[in-house]
Amino acid sequence: MDGVDLADLAKEYGTPLYVMSMATLERNIAEVKKAFLGDDAMTETDCAVAEFARAEAETARAKTEVAYASKAFLCTAMAQIIERSGLSLDVVSGGELFTALRAGFPPERIIFHGSNKTPQEIEAAVLAGDVRIVVDADGEVDMIERIYEKLVSEGRLARRGADGADMPVRVLFRINPRVDIHGHEYISTGKADSKFGFSIDEDVIYPAIGRAAAAERVRPVGVHFHVGSQVFDNTAHKAAVGEALKVVKGVKDRLGVELSEVNVGGGFGIRYTDGDVRKPYSYFTDPIVGLVNEYCEANGLAVPKVIIEPGRSIVGDAGLTLYTVGSIREIAGIRKFVSVDGGMTDNIRPALYEAKYEAAIVNRAGEPVNETVTIVGKCCESGDMLIKDTRLAHAESGDILAVFTTGAYGYSMASNYNKQPIPAVVLVDGGKAQLIVRRQTYEELAARDLPLSEH
Amino acid sequence: MDGVDLADLAKEYGTPLYVMSMATLERNIAEVKKAFLGDDAMTETDCAVAEFARAEAETARAKTEVAYASKAFLCTAMAQIIERSGLSLDVVSGGELFTALRAGFPPERIIFHGSNKTPQEIEAAVLAGDVRIVVDADGEVDMIERIYEKLVSEGRLARRGADGADMPVRVLFRINPRVDIHGHEYISTGKADSKFGFSIDEDVIYPAIGRAAAAERVRPVGVHFHVGSQVFDNTAHKAAVGEALKVVKGVKDRLGVELSEVNVGGGFGIRYTDGDVRKPYSYFTDPIVGLVNEYCEANGLAVPKVIIEPGRSIVGDAGLTLYTVGSIREIAGIRKFVSVDGGMTDNIRPALYEAKYEAAIVNRAGEPVNETVTIVGKCCESGDMLIKDTRLAHAESGDILAVFTTGAYGYSMASNYNKQPIPAVVLVDGGKAQLIVRRQTYEELAARDLPLSEH
Repeated sequence: MDGVDLADLAKEYGTPLYVMSMATLERNIAEVKKAFLGDDAMTETDCAVAEFARAEAETARAKTEVAYASKAFLCTAMAQIIERSGLSLDVVSGGELFTALRAGFPPERIIFHGSNKTPQEIEAAVLAGDVRIVVDADGEVDMIERIYEKLVSEGRLARRGADGADMPVRVLFRINPRVDIHGHEYISTGKADSKFGFSIDEDVIYPAIGRAAAAERVRPVGVHFHVGSQVFDNTAHKAAVGEALKVVKGVKDRLGVELSEVNVGGGFGIRYTDGDVRKPYSYFTDPIVGLVNEYCEANGLAVPKVIIEPGRSIVGDAGLTLYTVGSIREIAGIRKFVSVDGGMTDNIRPALYEAKYEAAIVNRAGEPVNETVTIVGKCCESGDMLIKDTRLAHAESGDILAVFTTGAYGYSMASNYNKQPIPAVVLVDGGKAQLIVRRQTYEELAARDLPLSEH
Repeated sequence: MDGVDLADLAKEYGTPLYVMSMATLERNIAEVKKAFLGDDAMTETDCAVAEFARAEAETARAKTEVAYASKAFLCTAMAQIIERSGLSLDVVSGGELFTALRAGFPPERIIFHGSNKTPQEIEAAVLAGDVRIVVDADGEVDMIERIYEKLVSEGRLARRGADGADMPVRVLFRINPRVDIHGHEYISTGKADSKFGFSIDEDVIYPAIGRAAAAERVRPVGVHFHVGSQVFDNTAHKAAVGEALKVVKGVKDRLGVELSEVNVGGGFGIRYTDGDVRKPYSYFTDPIVGLVNEYCEANGLAVPKVIIEPGRSIVGDAGLTLYTVGSIREIAGIRKFVSVDGGMTDNIRPALYEAKYEAAIVNRAGEPVNETVTIVGKCCESGDMLIKDTRLAHAESGDILAVFTTGAYGYSMASNYNKQPIPAVVLVDGGKAQLIVRRQTYEELAARDLPLSEH
């Protein structure tokens, strides 16, 4: 991987070990920039999906922005990689915001999401600088106003615009576009049943944006939606963008406010197994941008900037997890189990979503893949299964197993169940490896414990 | 709760907050001691299930031991509580073992489980002292021998018995009793499909125990099984104990070795919602002990000690989680969502197992419970739902919500998904509260991060 021997990595850093490929990260970032930002610095050979030509003409008018959805994978080094790439950053919590700011990420390129932001999180976002906040519920605009005023009155906030006035907080409104990604149909009572965002009913969304437009410390700049995850068809995105554009028009017609951003979220599917056919970003972004341009021209609207928020599609296939094989047991006529030294603690997705993965034994690359085995983790829990019935070379205890495409939602969802320490993360880049997250220690597992006090 | 106002706790320690009741812990521990250890120190009124009389006569002969299954909830204070109660401790990993030893737990009362123990874990267990190891797979006995010899040759191990000889490692063998807890039937190809334990086929189990009996550094002392979790019927335990006893007899007959421990695991179900009717421990333990006594008498075997390993039934109903209510949204005709400031990060069980819970608003104890709402967490994920369609008093943003019966597998499975810090744990005891695990900080979330190095 990137000129580094994976078995050597396992030896040097121990297992379980998350390994991220800088080359794949760069390729994915280059692809999204080429497809959506009009950045052609990437060569054709860099792009795995170069055969899908981007419809240049369609993307000519709308401005574009890409914010990496950091919930897929975030650490200091990842924030730095995204910062240097020029992309923006989507954060969903105070913890993600903290990590980004600590890594030096510029606030004006941070977009703060979340269905239930706490006052502490709003305060951190307002204090950080020109962070955009995606308002998700009634009451949030009031909360921003109240917290902004409090910070100004306490002398803790001195954010001044060019004209000397306090700079308002830029907000987008998350809408629920009532689009169901399953079956590629509108189902008005389907995704309408969601904890996220504002109803697009006109008696809900326009009064909500109207209150923001009238507020002193807040400036509504756009709308946002997110249709779902691991999407392979652009129908839902196209349908949702249509709903978002109607809101942009409605806001101009009713409130006289021109929204300048349409944030269409992410959800672009990646390949985990042979059943998944990854589409190029352009398959999603070209029609989206086309629809925005057409609608705005037809309705006399200024063309807003279009924002996408890919997460999994940036980091998913850039990562793999290395494990050491431990016990192997063959239950005659039933199943052969290959146990590894991690499992649901470092990758909850198989247990949580029945997610599928592929694997290989890295120290047996040349050997025939001729056994069907089930790869299980070390937790004391029957559900701790990583891959059911996969094909592997004949495994021995002590082998190093790689599970592929674990770059997204592996590390970020890891737990200390069974008091398993969180694994290290290594970045490989041009033949070199560097530790970007060190392994948690047993001492750290118990570091927040306090002994029983004696009454 | 235990004389402490929950709303005050939320104010003092913040939310989300795990709260454990010492009174309930003590009641559960007293119940299991009364039912199984013949300890009648507990008064009738202490015991919520006192109406189920223990069949004293049946438990007269077999010795008994209770090991708390620490994977349900473990921190330093919990290890101390278990230590003082006189119970033993079931650990399943190096991390749990470390935490127990660090808390001063005596090694001879620790039982080390695990389907795929690493050499590092075996070494830690052997070094710790007279920890019993539950051997789960072929190769583990060899691993113990090899590691023991290595430690002795390195001068790191000096464990001497009364006669001056090195004390061997006591091992139990986990067997797969091929019992299915669903439908309360034997299904020989059902649970036979498990990653845990040795087949009870005679050509598998007897050679395995035979190798241990012949080994210098290992002494086989018993058999172990575990039938499952949240079990409300004793059929599976009874069936499995029958299989275990056949192995005890087979080992004596074939190998001339008398096993002195039968460890029947845990799985004793608790009440989460009205659908669950918790059985007293005696409902499980009396027939188990009865079967052991009868079988041994009928077959001329010395009666082994019977060990049970309750986890959830000790801590589950001793814990609750406090949250602050944030955004509330009613989608007309569909659903009312009440968002809290935690969710799947502090309680993955609803998302992972569709586990059911009950809740109440602690600051509206006197108000009518007249709304049906869905309680959702703050993660950016549709699956982050704590309770679907539950009854609550009318909630307002800022209210404190308690979700009950979260003492088991809440804290222990918590994650940092969305960079949510792990909540604090408070123990309440006779009107006083003490912090036993302090809240993780944002700084700690990023403490293991290393910045990108410059090539």
